[in-house]
Amino acid sequence: MSKRPLILITNDDGVTAKGITSLIEVAKKYGDVIVVAPDKPQSAMGHAITINSILHVKEISSYENVKIMSTSGTPVDCVKLAVTEILDVKPDLVVSGINHGSNASINVIYSGTMSAAVEAALEGLPAIGFSLMDYANDADFEAAKHFADLIIPHVLENGIPKGVCLNVNIPKLPISEIKGIKVCHQANANWEEKFDKRTNPSGQVYYWLTGDFVNYEVGEETDLWALDNGYVSIVPTQFDMTAHSSIKNLNKLFSHVGKR
Amino acid sequence: MSKRPLILITNDDGVTAKGITSLIEVAKKYGDVIVVAPDKPQSAMGHAITINSILHVKEISSYENVKIMSTSGTPVDCVKLAVTEILDVKPDLVVSGINHGSNASINVIYSGTMSAAVEAALEGLPAIGFSLMDYANDADFEAAKHFADLIIPHVLENGIPKGVCLNVNIPKLPISEIKGIKVCHQANANWEEKFDKRTNPSGQVYYWLTGDFVNYEVGEETDLWALDNGYVSIVPTQFDMTAHSSIKNLNKLFSHVGKR
Repeated sequence: MSKRPLILITNDDGVTAKGITSLIEVAKKYGDVIVVAPDKPQSAMGHAITINSILHVKEISSYENVKIMSTSGTPVDCVKLAVTEILDVKPDLVVSGINHGSNASINVIYSGTMSAAVEAALEGLPAIGFSLMDYANDADFEAAKHFADLIIPHVLENGIPKGVCLNVNIPKLPISEIKGIKVCHQANANWEEKFDKRTNPSGQVYYWLTGDFVNYEVGEETDLWALDNGYVSIVPTQFDMTAHSSIKNLNKLFSHVGKR
Repeated sequence: MSKRPLILITNDDGVTAKGITSLIEVAKKYGDVIVVAPDKPQSAMGHAITINSILHVKEISSYENVKIMSTSGTPVDCVKLAVTEILDVKPDLVVSGINHGSNASINVIYSGTMSAAVEAALEGLPAIGFSLMDYANDADFEAAKHFADLIIPHVLENGIPKGVCLNVNIPKLPISEIKGIKVCHQANANWEEKFDKRTNPSGQVYYWLTGDFVNYEVGEETDLWALDNGYVSIVPTQFDMTAHSSIKNLNKLFSHVGKR
């Protein structure tokens, strides 16, 4: 019957990733931690959920009093399972990550890490996704942990607006070179795809998705600017995808279509 | 060297679904059609992409002069493959669907159909996702086809704002009972999940995701209101997930955190 906050941790790199272990180490200073994370890497799964097959849940271990569970599902499945089935009470905070690799700019839409945070926001829970701009399995998470250690208690104390979650990206720099935190908007950038076309030993063609990340926005108010200039970026992220500014014009355009 | 518009069709129910065949029948009246769609159902895949495994592409058939190709990937993979690898020129329009089942309100975020349309918008292409509010494999697509037949030529002629795609949902009603089209915003509704907990023959517990869809918004400006009241809904949909209205306050809140 502890009064410490209950913190749910998930990620998309899988329950054994170095990033999630780093996040556990920070979060358990501030609350009772339970981990419900995918049993295998689920990067780039976006907001995918499992509706046409079954889900398994397994209790793996306790790591310094933290209960660690894995599921066969996506990051979003993990949040749904934890909140609906595994936990007796709603968590006070959901944290996702620390992702191995950037989720800045348009990556938010492909990211399993951030989709878990968005799903938590959808369920009315405060949520933060943390990502370190280093894809390596053995990336150095010291700076990311330092900022998680500042941001988690700050959010527990002050809250975040309902229906919004935070997309936090940490540059690949030593702590001493990071200048601070910028709250900013998702830069207008995108992947310019290429496919690497190959032939298998039986002569069949297959493809690997690859590509270059291109930033179309030069302003200083974006997450990419912040990260390029030595700041941690925080983008408040929501789930309303309506292009509100287009409604009026499109209503005019469609006013005579299909009317009776 | 045709001057007819080039229309790319995809979906998330798979290349053999009745919905995509209905969409092909309509679209080929207005342009040269190529289909690049998943080789199996990919519902609820969200904006998932395939980065850790390979992709196959197969030419299946020509159906009334329409080239039909399937891929082993997600709906978003299909758009990327078509635009980057399969087509020699950019399509003039991307249409996704017709989905078997609603993609109104928050379903947009889980939907493979709409993620394909959002991906096309990301690539700067006009795009429409069509969904019929009937999950049945043998659903009656006549009304949906009627409205696709109004909306597709309208969009080809008038365009849509850059970076925006249309989320079109059609109620499960006969054409004669549909009152017209409403351009509206994504209703604030959500799934209140339940998990159906079962035991397999070996005694192992597993779960099926299920739940009830609950609308928290009573206004008449939403897609759910339009659909409940006999209208086709169109929600202009974008890929900027920034909660712009929260930036200023959060900047104040974080102004002293981690500064040097």
